[in-house]
Amino acid sequence: MFHLHERLAADTVEVTRWPLCRVLLMNDRTYPWLILVPQRAEVREIHQLAAADRARLTEEVAAAARALETECGADKMNVAALGNVVAQLHVHVIARFRSDPAWPRPVWGVVPSEAYDTEGMAAMMARLRPALSAAAESLGEI
Amino acid sequence: MFHLHERLAADTVEVTRWPLCRVLLMNDRTYPWLILVPQRAEVREIHQLAAADRARLTEEVAAAARALETECGADKMNVAALGNVVAQLHVHVIARFRSDPAWPRPVWGVVPSEAYDTEGMAAMMARLRPALSAAAESLGEI
Repeated sequence: MFHLHERLAADTVEVTRWPLCRVLLMNDRTYPWLILVPQRAEVREIHQLAAADRARLTEEVAAAARALETECGADKMNVAALGNVVAQLHVHVIARFRSDPAWPRPVWGVVPSEAYDTEGMAAMMARLRPALSAAAESLGEI
Repeated sequence: MFHLHERLAADTVEVTRWPLCRVLLMNDRTYPWLILVPQRAEVREIHQLAAADRARLTEEVAAAARALETECGADKMNVAALGNVVAQLHVHVIARFRSDPAWPRPVWGVVPSEAYDTEGMAAMMARLRPALSAAAESLGEI
């Protein structure tokens, strides 16, 4: 049985569910930042997934990265599975800008996270949901 | 035409070449750290790769991560495609330990890198080459 780790649940808001992954928005308005969590129990590493799930994860991550890059006009996308703090397998998909406070460093630990306010979260969701919905259609073809 | 970025060439030593990727050892003895670089010109993002190359990249990264985890007895593997400094697509595969100097943070920027000495590099290569060679055999089956 898959249960989303409580720390991931606390730090994010769910955007949508794809066939393999929950697609979550990190509640940090400093960076447009998605987290994809494969809905599989007890998996910590990408190489522990079954090969078919791993292929699916790759396509869902690529689709999310492409959609977020386009929607935000990012300078660079960062994609990472770290899991040193929360071991449940999750993949960060972060839109980076030359003007963001961590550039060119990775985002972790550089500035304290800043939660969206209600309006900001609603506006972000209103952009992300259609963009990810369109991305999901291309996923259907795999 | 694929050319390895000069910064990646300067910071690493080649371990082997797989069908898609060059497999490089980061010349930093603080962490067992591989970098996989798809031998494709002008690609910055995972989602820019052709789907078949992306599937291949995923399997090569998973094979490298599994081999490095086993060889080093890592507590956690970190896998990341960042590219904020060197845009040429490259994937970090890093063995992490609860005892390493950056744990649980990501490794970038925490402590200055320390090059291997000649003996240390030879010893690391003597461990990695057979481990990665065995991993490549499982790759052949895809």
